[in-house]
Amino acid sequence: MLIVQKYGGTSVGSLERIRAVAKRVKKTCDEGHSVVLVVSAMAGETNKLIALAEEATKQPEGREMDLLLSSGERISAALTAMCISELGIKSMSFTGRQVGIVTDDVHTKARIEAVSAERLRHAIKEGVVPVVAGFQGITISGTDVTTLGRGGSDLTAVAIAASLKADLCEIYTDVDGVYTTDPNMVPEARKLDKVAYEEMLEFASLGAKVLQSRSVEYAKKYNVPLVVKSSFSDAPGTFVVKEDKEMERVVVSGVAYDKNQSKVTIIGVPDRPGIASILFNAVADANVVVDMIVQNISHETGATDISFTVPRTESKKAMKLAGALARELGAKGTDLRENIAKLSIIGVGMRSHSGVAAKMFATLAKHGINILMISTSEIKVSCVIEEKFTELAVRALHDAFELEGKAKSAPKKAAKKKTAKKAAKKKSKK
Amino acid sequence: MLIVQKYGGTSVGSLERIRAVAKRVKKTCDEGHSVVLVVSAMAGETNKLIALAEEATKQPEGREMDLLLSSGERISAALTAMCISELGIKSMSFTGRQVGIVTDDVHTKARIEAVSAERLRHAIKEGVVPVVAGFQGITISGTDVTTLGRGGSDLTAVAIAASLKADLCEIYTDVDGVYTTDPNMVPEARKLDKVAYEEMLEFASLGAKVLQSRSVEYAKKYNVPLVVKSSFSDAPGTFVVKEDKEMERVVVSGVAYDKNQSKVTIIGVPDRPGIASILFNAVADANVVVDMIVQNISHETGATDISFTVPRTESKKAMKLAGALARELGAKGTDLRENIAKLSIIGVGMRSHSGVAAKMFATLAKHGINILMISTSEIKVSCVIEEKFTELAVRALHDAFELEGKAKSAPKKAAKKKTAKKAAKKKSKK
Repeated sequence: MLIVQKYGGTSVGSLERIRAVAKRVKKTCDEGHSVVLVVSAMAGETNKLIALAEEATKQPEGREMDLLLSSGERISAALTAMCISELGIKSMSFTGRQVGIVTDDVHTKARIEAVSAERLRHAIKEGVVPVVAGFQGITISGTDVTTLGRGGSDLTAVAIAASLKADLCEIYTDVDGVYTTDPNMVPEARKLDKVAYEEMLEFASLGAKVLQSRSVEYAKKYNVPLVVKSSFSDAPGTFVVKEDKEMERVVVSGVAYDKNQSKVTIIGVPDRPGIASILFNAVADANVVVDMIVQNISHETGATDISFTVPRTESKKAMKLAGALARELGAKGTDLRENIAKLSIIGVGMRSHSGVAAKMFATLAKHGINILMISTSEIKVSCVIEEKFTELAVRALHDAFELEGKAKSAPKKAAKKKTAKKAAKKKSKK
Repeated sequence: MLIVQKYGGTSVGSLERIRAVAKRVKKTCDEGHSVVLVVSAMAGETNKLIALAEEATKQPEGREMDLLLSSGERISAALTAMCISELGIKSMSFTGRQVGIVTDDVHTKARIEAVSAERLRHAIKEGVVPVVAGFQGITISGTDVTTLGRGGSDLTAVAIAASLKADLCEIYTDVDGVYTTDPNMVPEARKLDKVAYEEMLEFASLGAKVLQSRSVEYAKKYNVPLVVKSSFSDAPGTFVVKEDKEMERVVVSGVAYDKNQSKVTIIGVPDRPGIASILFNAVADANVVVDMIVQNISHETGATDISFTVPRTESKKAMKLAGALARELGAKGTDLRENIAKLSIIGVGMRSHSGVAAKMFATLAKHGINILMISTSEIKVSCVIEEKFTELAVRALHDAFELEGKAKSAPKKAAKKKTAKKAAKKKSKK
């Protein structure tokens, strides 16, 4: 097999840790596989460099930031190649440029345009273990260094795996997989053996920071089989793969939450066509990332309330903008609610099951938790609630959807699973 | 004027120091000059990376070392560009690749083959202050990063100044110029206003670590006017320029010493043609850098003693080699002397003056200092002495050649200078 292994910052956080990585690589090679490594900067290094840049200037140029930040991965790539060589395995480090990762020129969050990986193919053929500096690429003209945004090394690994048509892309991190919910909050949370790309995307975008969202999108597009595992243990991890029939039997795969949100409301907006467009164009122009949007038309007054959620760090900016827009649109006023949390149930099985949302609402109601906003997609239902109810709600939903009891993809438990599935189906139809 | 300014590691050792550099750049720009910067890695960073590499592996690959070590300069270049921009001056960082510094592929000590500097010319035209990451280049094929060896940022600066036909190349460091001798040893040591490239080469290769030797050679070859000054003061520094007539009037410019040497002797080598060639080829093959070589033929025995000096860190390696060669050549034995120092008087004026060496020997004799080896060049006389006499010898020579009293190139002291010169001439003829 050709395996791409990506190691995050904590996995290469010290020379001792890098040596452990080298040993794992040796083991994989000894088993007869070819390995390509992608590494992040040593833990803390990127933050240290960002702090220096922020001390240097209020508004660092993206181009300069990229030259600065890409250095961290180059350092860990070189050190990792050295540690692997020390074990008697030929190894060489490569920069983003050297493996032909070509991006657009949007510095600090560039998008990958092409991956040639020519030197990697050559190295593999020569029996060399290549170690690629993650997170970086070069502009199409080849003149400048770019970076792929936070968590960009995941994307590097997936893009390289796609280009090399690797059999597997292993993402090593400090957790041992994807759980049905936060195990720190719910001790009964169960590690998932398998999730669909779509589910992983929802988990990732909801603040379960196991995998960078863009890397999951990329993996989905090129059908790269991913597995998320811990570099600190030999546990099998969670596979992130194409949706299969077995998955559909499970209605809900997990419960996610995000406490880092604020809700902004513009009250009494005159109900005219195009109002929402004006509003959210203005918000986008100000580079504020909006998550949920809810609009309700009041039939009595002919006016409407428009609410949206933003990351809590953007509250002030969003409210300032909302105030200006309220005046411009002739609305009555604005409102900010900070202590909220977003709660989501996720599962590709929802596509073929009804009553899932209803069950979620009922569960929250049973525990006296008021719902402030609702938003749904094909494979997700999200509710905004008061932040203080987060733990209670997550535990209640985890329990209601029987996430603890299900053993989704282990073949020997197939019989049990079916029963669980039927039970879930029955319940969700109530 | 177009000025290339190079700042060493201590000059960019912290953000506070980098801000001071930015201010100096602004001042130079405000005076109407165009500036190109070359920066070293922040003080300590390169040593930190070397320590990590040595911890990773006993024998790091040169190619990996170069990727590792070149990162330090990239970081300081980006941060320096940010600090300059913060003062309202357009600034951009550039890597060795981006300014077209092409080298051979001898990793960790690559030689510059060509410098295009195209992007620099463009940036200068656009009113941008370019900040170049020193110490690094790329191979001719463009595939790999190389570094130019310790002190390589000096070479980067000189090479860029040559390519841009800059009016001046300023080397900012933590000392304020080149002295007649080590001021820590001789408080009367005087800063030189001007030295010839050839003299600077001797100073540099003798352990006066103000400027990297190769950068001086390069400056000499392309006639780049250099000035060495302190980034911690506004003192005028020392100009390193083409030899001029005024210089010739001064017989000796300075006294240098090097305590980091050992003397290896092969005793009783049969005196055959080609012996020295066999010996020093073997030494060169073992990558031992030999400095002084002395061979004396004994007319009585028909055998000869061959002595050479090596850096003290190479003593063991050199002695092992000498032992093997002694057996091979049928010599009587070997001898190692570790506690030695090399003492040199340097001056382009020696070319046209006789008696300089004699005066040096007489001075040492007067103080009871035994000479172990002698070596001379056109502009230098070196003696190896016992290490314990170093301070005494340096002071005595500094005094004997009246280095303290001479004010070599300040125009207003021209009259005095002549007298001093005459006196020196007179004395040296004794």
